[in-house]
Amino acid sequence: MNMESRYERGFAKLREIDGEAGERVVQSLADIAPDFARYLIEFPLGDVYSRPGLDLKSREIAVVAALTALGNAAPQLKVHIQGALNVGVTRTEIVETIMQMAVYAGFPAALNGLTAAKEVFSSPARHRG
Amino acid sequence: MNMESRYERGFAKLREIDGEAGERVVQSLADIAPDFARYLIEFPLGDVYSRPGLDLKSREIAVVAALTALGNAAPQLKVHIQGALNVGVTRTEIVETIMQMAVYAGFPAALNGLTAAKEVFSSPARHRG
Amino acid sequence: MNMESRYERGFAKLREIDGEAGERVVQSLADIAPDFARYLIEFPLGDVYSRPGLDLKSREIAVVAALTALGNAAPQLKVHIQGALNVGVTRTEIVETIMQMAVYAGFPAALNGLTAAKEVFSSPARHRG
Amino acid sequence: MNMESRYERGFAKLREIDGEAGERVVQSLADIAPDFARYLIEFPLGDVYSRPGLDLKSREIAVVAALTALGNAAPQLKVHIQGALNVGVTRTEIVETIMQMAVYAGFPAALNGLTAAKEVFSSPARHRG
Amino acid sequence: MNMESRYERGFAKLREIDGEAGERVVQSLADIAPDFARYLIEFPLGDVYSRPGLDLKSREIAVVAALTALGNAAPQLKVHIQGALNVGVTRTEIVETIMQMAVYAGFPAALNGLTAAKEVFSSPARHRG
Amino acid sequence: MNMESRYERGFAKLREIDGEAGERVVQSLADIAPDFARYLIEFPLGDVYSRPGLDLKSREIAVVAALTALGNAAPQLKVHIQGALNVGVTRTEIVETIMQMAVYAGFPAALNGLTAAKEVFSSPARHRG
Repeated sequence: MNMESRYERGFAKLREIDGEAGERVVQSLADIAPDFARYLIEFPLGDVYSRPGLDLKSREIAVVAALTALGNAAPQLKVHIQGALNVGVTRTEIVETIMQMAVYAGFPAALNGLTAAKEVFSSPARHRG
Repeated sequence: MNMESRYERGFAKLREIDGEAGERVVQSLADIAPDFARYLIEFPLGDVYSRPGLDLKSREIAVVAALTALGNAAPQLKVHIQGALNVGVTRTEIVETIMQMAVYAGFPAALNGLTAAKEVFSSPARHRG
Repeated sequence: MNMESRYERGFAKLREIDGEAGERVVQSLADIAPDFARYLIEFPLGDVYSRPGLDLKSREIAVVAALTALGNAAPQLKVHIQGALNVGVTRTEIVETIMQMAVYAGFPAALNGLTAAKEVFSSPARHRG
Repeated sequence: MNMESRYERGFAKLREIDGEAGERVVQSLADIAPDFARYLIEFPLGDVYSRPGLDLKSREIAVVAALTALGNAAPQLKVHIQGALNVGVTRTEIVETIMQMAVYAGFPAALNGLTAAKEVFSSPARHRG
Repeated sequence: MNMESRYERGFAKLREIDGEAGERVVQSLADIAPDFARYLIEFPLGDVYSRPGLDLKSREIAVVAALTALGNAAPQLKVHIQGALNVGVTRTEIVETIMQMAVYAGFPAALNGLTAAKEVFSSPARHRG
Repeated sequence: MNMESRYERGFAKLREIDGEAGERVVQSLADIAPDFARYLIEFPLGDVYSRPGLDLKSREIAVVAALTALGNAAPQLKVHIQGALNVGVTRTEIVETIMQMAVYAGFPAALNGLTAAKEVFSSPARHRG
């Protein structure tokens, strides 16, 4: 397992989870921090998301929960709401996950998460690339 | 579905998820904010946790993720790591959920989450009441 | 005190505090999470805001302070700055509350809170519905 | 109004609000950051707390709300729960302020705030210096 | 060292670090909280930034790091990325500082920080006033 | 540059920055999440800290600033205050960095950071391993 294979494994995972939205994030880093684009594929996707022990649906539920609770990363929350849909989490499960955050991070965090979900659900580009 | 039933449904859910640890939280509120103890059972447990649409395992994964990411509620994180075990989330799934938070909330948050998990996993009182 | 009365009491409180802005929030949830709209009226407004023991002005000062300090819920901060005005908190008291947050959450949080207040104070729709 | 008077005004305010707990905080800084101790008296207390436009009780309610919501400054929350008592906020008003934070920052934040209040309320050193 | 000199020292520092962007922030406060504009110059700039013991470049690196990690003060982050450039921090050093925050506050925080840097770096108004 | 070299480079960096405290963190993960210990050495230390473009002193200043501002990772803050000393940041520079956070994250965050620094500075185990 050399460095190249972390990248390749991560890039495949990026396409599986995030589709074109993930590739756009990577491309947007090309001129300012190309190494960071590489790290993004290698560590979160090539190392962490590729691990056995927790299925992709649960990983995306965990991420949607955390980003809703933190409340300071709206663009990434939308990417992961779409990512959750892409790996088979249902709309209902996403909405329930976000609603549950009202208990742990407050109603404003949940409200803003629901607004993000509403935007993703109604986007014409919702199907994967 | 009257107010009493929200409480009863919530209290049953409290015992299912949190076991005795949950009851201790409720008891600790008796002298300072008894109404808050009631709300805690009625709203998070009677209303939210009791909803269909997301299974209990996924709800606990979402909560462990969010509390690890927020990083400012160590006692509640431990209660929910135990709660996750109680509803069938495996130790591996809990560790994976917490590790994933390194990506979304930083390595210190994940490290502190793993320390909390280690304490819960090694506690002699780990089995449910 | 049955479930219906929590909703009715909460809805009356919503109109008293938030006016039309509150109703718009509730309506915006209708297609994505109607139960959450109901919870929003029942728990924060029907249960918490309706409690004796702390007057509405103090409750709104507390909320403006907290949302300014958290700094990740701009839409809700604006709703509550307006809500504070609606229940009799003066513009000066709102500005002082936000300024005080510079001490507890930093100058950027206070600056962004003052920007929110400026937008609410200058809005032509500032009078209640 | 020269620099000395900011300090004097702030120190009087420190004694009024925080009593001996405030002086202990200042003393604890003497060997590591004495200038910071001075700033602490001059800016938050001499400048901000001394302003007209918001009464001391409301200022302390705002601070208890914000520190409960932020959830990462337990020692300061306790100092300000005591400070709130010192300037005339009742125990009930403090508990209500903290409970309200369940709505805006989640139940764990409110639970930890109530635990802090419980400790302050039961402390034998609760009366002012 | 009287109050006037804190203001004068702070205002000179504001121009050195933030250039016209800093002055615009101060002007934007004129009608809603003019005293806060004064505090902003006196305390952060006149007191803190003017201290010996840490050079201005390191101070700006610290601020860019903290605002990236907090992730809830985008306008101030941009002002300080420009401020860092103004006092001699290189683009590379800024990008490295922000990238490092992926480790301590998560990849979303770092991504949003890099987006802010990209906007500042590409702004035609980047030269100092 | 294969995976082994990321680990080796990271482990050397760990010893340079964190000394024995870093190794203890890694050892504490051995029984619960050994892969996370490896990631911790490979990504933050082997990838990020080892980059040119920002000297180690500035990296540690950035981390002390961020962890002080976030305020929810006390153990890691202490490790990095010691790490900053280890790579040549002076006590004064550390204190100034933390004090500056009063402006960006509030006085409680800075106070808690100064308390952490005081503990590290007075520890008999302060010399590097």
